Amino acid sequence: MKLASLKHGRDGRLVVVSRDMTRCIEAAEAAPTLQAALDDWSTAEPALRGIFEQLDSGAWPGEPFDPAQCASPLPRAYQWADGSAYINHVELVRKARGAEVPESFYTDPLMYQGGSDAFLAPRDPIPLRDEAWGCDMEGEIAVVTDDVPMGVSPADAIGHIKLIMLCNDVSLRNLIPGELAKGFGFFQSKPPSAFSPVAVTPEELGRAWRDARVHLPLLIDYNGQPFGRAQAGEDATFSLADLVAHAARTRALCAGTIIGSGTVSNKDEDGGPGRPVAQGGLGYSCIAEIRTIETIRDGKPSTAFMRWGDTVGIDMKDAQGRSIFGRIEQEVVRA
Amino acid sequence: MKLASLKHGRDGRLVVVSRDMTRCIEAAEAAPTLQAALDDWSTAEPALRGIFEQLDSGAWPGEPFDPAQCASPLPRAYQWADGSAYINHVELVRKARGAEVPESFYTDPLMYQGGSDAFLAPRDPIPLRDEAWGCDMEGEIAVVTDDVPMGVSPADAIGHIKLIMLCNDVSLRNLIPGELAKGFGFFQSKPPSAFSPVAVTPEELGRAWRDARVHLPLLIDYNGQPFGRAQAGEDATFSLADLVAHAARTRALCAGTIIGSGTVSNKDEDGGPGRPVAQGGLGYSCIAEIRTIETIRDGKPSTAFMRWGDTVGIDMKDAQGRSIFGRIEQEVVRA
Repeated sequence: MKLASLKHGRDGRLVVVSRDMTRCIEAAEAAPTLQAALDDWSTAEPALRGIFEQLDSGAWPGEPFDPAQCASPLPRAYQWADGSAYINHVELVRKARGAEVPESFYTDPLMYQGGSDAFLAPRDPIPLRDEAWGCDMEGEIAVVTDDVPMGVSPADAIGHIKLIMLCNDVSLRNLIPGELAKGFGFFQSKPPSAFSPVAVTPEELGRAWRDARVHLPLLIDYNGQPFGRAQAGEDATFSLADLVAHAARTRALCAGTIIGSGTVSNKDEDGGPGRPVAQGGLGYSCIAEIRTIETIRDGKPSTAFMRWGDTVGIDMKDAQGRSIFGRIEQEVVRA
Repeated sequence: MKLASLKHGRDGRLVVVSRDMTRCIEAAEAAPTLQAALDDWSTAEPALRGIFEQLDSGAWPGEPFDPAQCASPLPRAYQWADGSAYINHVELVRKARGAEVPESFYTDPLMYQGGSDAFLAPRDPIPLRDEAWGCDMEGEIAVVTDDVPMGVSPADAIGHIKLIMLCNDVSLRNLIPGELAKGFGFFQSKPPSAFSPVAVTPEELGRAWRDARVHLPLLIDYNGQPFGRAQAGEDATFSLADLVAHAARTRALCAGTIIGSGTVSNKDEDGGPGRPVAQGGLGYSCIAEIRTIETIRDGKPSTAFMRWGDTVGIDMKDAQGRSIFGRIEQEVVRA
């Protein structure tokens, strides 16, 4: 089942979307908003699924679906917590600044509490006041949970993952070192993220959803060129269920909690840092990584962070080459 | 004007509360929930104020108000960002571990993104799975904003502060060092906070609200004994408006954003760390501070963190000795 929120007020208008994403139909009889559906998922889910079946079979025609009319599936959320499951990303970033990766990072997930009060729509521009802040995209997988009890095990956490999305976790790289040095984590360096036009239930991914990981390449384009093709199912030290369990260790999580995977990142086949897509490699899901590799290789980075007018596309396709979540497509604009 | 949310579903039922907090009246005609009121504050505020005037004058009798029936004013919120305005608290904590306070801390506020998906009710227990985690209270002032534009100045931020509350920012002290060492800030170490039964509009504080600070003592009781009496208007390096502006530097803030002051903390009259209330001092708004002072003095702390059965009360009174926000009263219980 595929769900989206058309732009409407602060919380959008929930629609059910056909599998091929050409059509959609209002879901108000099941729930007016996605948050309302998640608040009462056991009731809303079968009702939504009933609508989906009518729509997808063609019994109900619906209306044309336009991803450009979409807000993020949850236009605002009560919780957005972002992990860092792809330790290759962490290793690279630390290596570039000559820091070690502590042994605990391989068993204890990194996670930060992100701002969730207003996400960008998947086709909306990224407002940036100052290019010197070092704007970067981060391509990620994100999941949405129902109510998760405190102390849930990773095995039980899987069942609490109700929806899957793609994410552009926008980062202001040049504000990060100063903020992290203060010790309280990210704040100004993490402006609003954007999510894919469509959120899908796990079974929609078929065999690509296993071990609470998404076994498909994450397609990142930068200024219209292929930039990242990393396999999201590979090199994820922690599964999305591990991350949900980590978040719930000391507290319950409210329905509608979004948990992110962190930047998807693969090692090269020879174990080294990845090569650019243009050189036959899997590339990168953020600019910081290629800059890190340039720094390790040349002593300094040569790829600039995003400037006003730069664009990023984030997508994921099924075995038949069809977009699963719809495409995130954003331009950085002066704010 | 005073507002509260009676326990009801996930978001409570908004009520207007009389100034003396003996009576309340449903506000559904103005807005069903406090978040809904904040989402459209310019419409809801005059409607709520009309109800408040009828109630407070006695024209409308209302029903008895019972703080024990209250959820936190926003039972869940889209954003909770907690500052650290009282640099004395930071100085003490760092001094105890032999660390310097960077010069920038006096001009650039510390702030972390907190979890906001489910706050504790003001009289609800604090669920704690493991006493070894080192449970602590933190008494704070918190403000609620309407929509705040990106890049707002501190002077303009004042006008976006619509409501004021007290906060118990529950912390798991023994999880903090490990989490901060990972570099991504607090997560598991900050389980849900609780807020006072009542949120009040700034003018309700009269002359005690000036310079975007609350010039009244914050009354902390621990296991029924006076523990903290710090003046919330003193020693706040940053005003609440400064903190709102800090939060909005790189992004707009959604209506219903809650910004916290950090633990209220005063220096002693002689400039040294404060003495306990029992010794004529102003005491502490959290246990970590007295432990820090014990460590500086004796080489090790002697006051334990909160255990199952320990209780904390947080209150603030007007010049006539009447509670302004209602009292936070919580017991730590085994979860």
